[in-house]
Amino acid sequence: MWPQLDQVPERVLTRAARVRLAVFDIDGVFTDGRLWFTDDGREFKAFHVLDGLGIKLLAEAGVRTAIISSRFSPVVGRRAAELGIELVYQDQDDKLSCFQRILAALRLATDQAAYTGDDLPDLPVLKRAGLAVTVANAHPMLVPHCHYRTHAPGGAGAVREVCDLILHAQGRLADIGRRFGHG
Amino acid sequence: MWPQLDQVPERVLTRAARVRLAVFDIDGVFTDGRLWFTDDGREFKAFHVLDGLGIKLLAEAGVRTAIISSRFSPVVGRRAAELGIELVYQDQDDKLSCFQRILAALRLATDQAAYTGDDLPDLPVLKRAGLAVTVANAHPMLVPHCHYRTHAPGGAGAVREVCDLILHAQGRLADIGRRFGHG
Amino acid sequence: MWPQLDQVPERVLTRAARVRLAVFDIDGVFTDGRLWFTDDGREFKAFHVLDGLGIKLLAEAGVRTAIISSRFSPVVGRRAAELGIELVYQDQDDKLSCFQRILAALRLATDQAAYTGDDLPDLPVLKRAGLAVTVANAHPMLVPHCHYRTHAPGGAGAVREVCDLILHAQGRLADIGRRFGHG
Amino acid sequence: MWPQLDQVPERVLTRAARVRLAVFDIDGVFTDGRLWFTDDGREFKAFHVLDGLGIKLLAEAGVRTAIISSRFSPVVGRRAAELGIELVYQDQDDKLSCFQRILAALRLATDQAAYTGDDLPDLPVLKRAGLAVTVANAHPMLVPHCHYRTHAPGGAGAVREVCDLILHAQGRLADIGRRFGHG
Repeated sequence: MWPQLDQVPERVLTRAARVRLAVFDIDGVFTDGRLWFTDDGREFKAFHVLDGLGIKLLAEAGVRTAIISSRFSPVVGRRAAELGIELVYQDQDDKLSCFQRILAALRLATDQAAYTGDDLPDLPVLKRAGLAVTVANAHPMLVPHCHYRTHAPGGAGAVREVCDLILHAQGRLADIGRRFGHG
Repeated sequence: MWPQLDQVPERVLTRAARVRLAVFDIDGVFTDGRLWFTDDGREFKAFHVLDGLGIKLLAEAGVRTAIISSRFSPVVGRRAAELGIELVYQDQDDKLSCFQRILAALRLATDQAAYTGDDLPDLPVLKRAGLAVTVANAHPMLVPHCHYRTHAPGGAGAVREVCDLILHAQGRLADIGRRFGHG
Repeated sequence: MWPQLDQVPERVLTRAARVRLAVFDIDGVFTDGRLWFTDDGREFKAFHVLDGLGIKLLAEAGVRTAIISSRFSPVVGRRAAELGIELVYQDQDDKLSCFQRILAALRLATDQAAYTGDDLPDLPVLKRAGLAVTVANAHPMLVPHCHYRTHAPGGAGAVREVCDLILHAQGRLADIGRRFGHG
Repeated sequence: MWPQLDQVPERVLTRAARVRLAVFDIDGVFTDGRLWFTDDGREFKAFHVLDGLGIKLLAEAGVRTAIISSRFSPVVGRRAAELGIELVYQDQDDKLSCFQRILAALRLATDQAAYTGDDLPDLPVLKRAGLAVTVANAHPMLVPHCHYRTHAPGGAGAVREVCDLILHAQGRLADIGRRFGHG
């Protein structure tokens, strides 16, 4: 599923090394894009346990995380709270202006921000983000505009792969591995 | 997942260019065919976020959309409303006569209608639709009767692939891409 | 997903041609084997829409259908009722004796019965059934004891593939296709 | 899906032959790692029917089973009870100390225990377990520390594959097969 991180091109690692904020779309990125609806009007989503640890490890490394979604679902707030993601923006028609407001609030430059998305509404942000990432299952129009495309599909480890890439580029992944007994 | 749209045969594009109405089956097309049942009598379905944007982009391009399903589920009405699909026909034993009633009401000819289905009850409509589409996961008997078979399976982007095909054939996809910053 | 039915060996078709009763396991056959549990004690399962039509077409061709499951879930009764499966036996520790009681009640010989299963508790029945079928995702110990293994996994069309095989062997599939406009 | 058990290296079988206790992580091992959340605050998980029989067969062979999970969900307790798993430890930040407490309570040595996990928090246990197993969908950092990697992904038979491996190494699988009519 995962790439060999030592095979990631140097130009991608350079971009990832600068990241202080990692922003993610929800549907198709934190999930596989499926929206479950029940016949009594409930909605649910499936997140992946590997992604959760990635977000926590990023936070420990001092990289902030945020969510920008076009849709709105109470499910997202719940999962974000569990993972300690403070910046959660749902129901956003204009993802770029939302992204720029976050950067302004955090006093970060665009090249300090990574963005991971899977469909056309993510494209305006991807074209500006310091590290633009798309997922294995993304709309094909996004691919030429991204610096990196995850091997894992959304909802099956794509977010963790982005976290690992950033941590690796910042020289933190080996330490993390050692803490758990790796290497 | 997606095909290169510039590799779609000219005869398929010609058919797609005439489409003013795109009709879709639900189970196996908008979903992967799975029907979830709970032990207290609820039912649910999983739709895909990529398909939703496709339907909205078709509407903006002036192509109407409709749903014809053999089964009935309140879930379908809810998702259709969210996507702005006005023509929703469930519990239809005879999909062909339903299809023809829709065409009559909209004063459209069969060659102005696309139909996407995955199983034998869809076949009578597929044999008449101007653009007959089946999905990667369809019953094999449908394949020889369809002009196009999606690369994406139902419930994982098949509907979006049909929308993209129609928009591309009508010269609208490049504009849409440009609006989001592509190209 | 589906095999070319004209490539099924003659010895399998001969067996399938004699079938008057098709018996199916539930978990792993009508489903992909997954059992969903909710934190408030509910359970649900995912069935596949393609399988439903297969069961109905078998019934029209005069082939009866039955379910034998080791587990018990109200979900199974609901789906069986929807598909018109009258013979539903759940919570069966001894599938073979259940199978034999069904045959006795219907006055059928073992070579008039097909059985489809995916795990060891199905093996005693598979060794006696006239047509023994296992699924793409079955436990490997079953394979050498079965006459046919579906290309489709359980919960993704395996049941429909069995229905098609029986209908084809009995010379009914072409007629069914023609009724829907095929051929 | 399954490996040929007679192709498993002798050094792995030797380790598996000593196992008296099989410990499993939940998310990513008993499940495919997906965590479903509903918009009214419910959570659910999908287990696999093949795994259930494996756990029961292990118990019959005198091998005890336990669960250690970092998360907490009432779903886990329910499924564990159904499978007769008595030792269920959830909400465990330090899986190694939990593992060691279980061993002490059961008066077992580490080389009598198997552990199956999929992510970094499992690594400290995997480095000590007599038989360290990871799954097809595991984080790649785990692979070099494990004696065996399942062919089946978590939630789709990985647990059963571990059970079969242990039963085979202990000379019990052939007997079990024969009981069901195999061989």
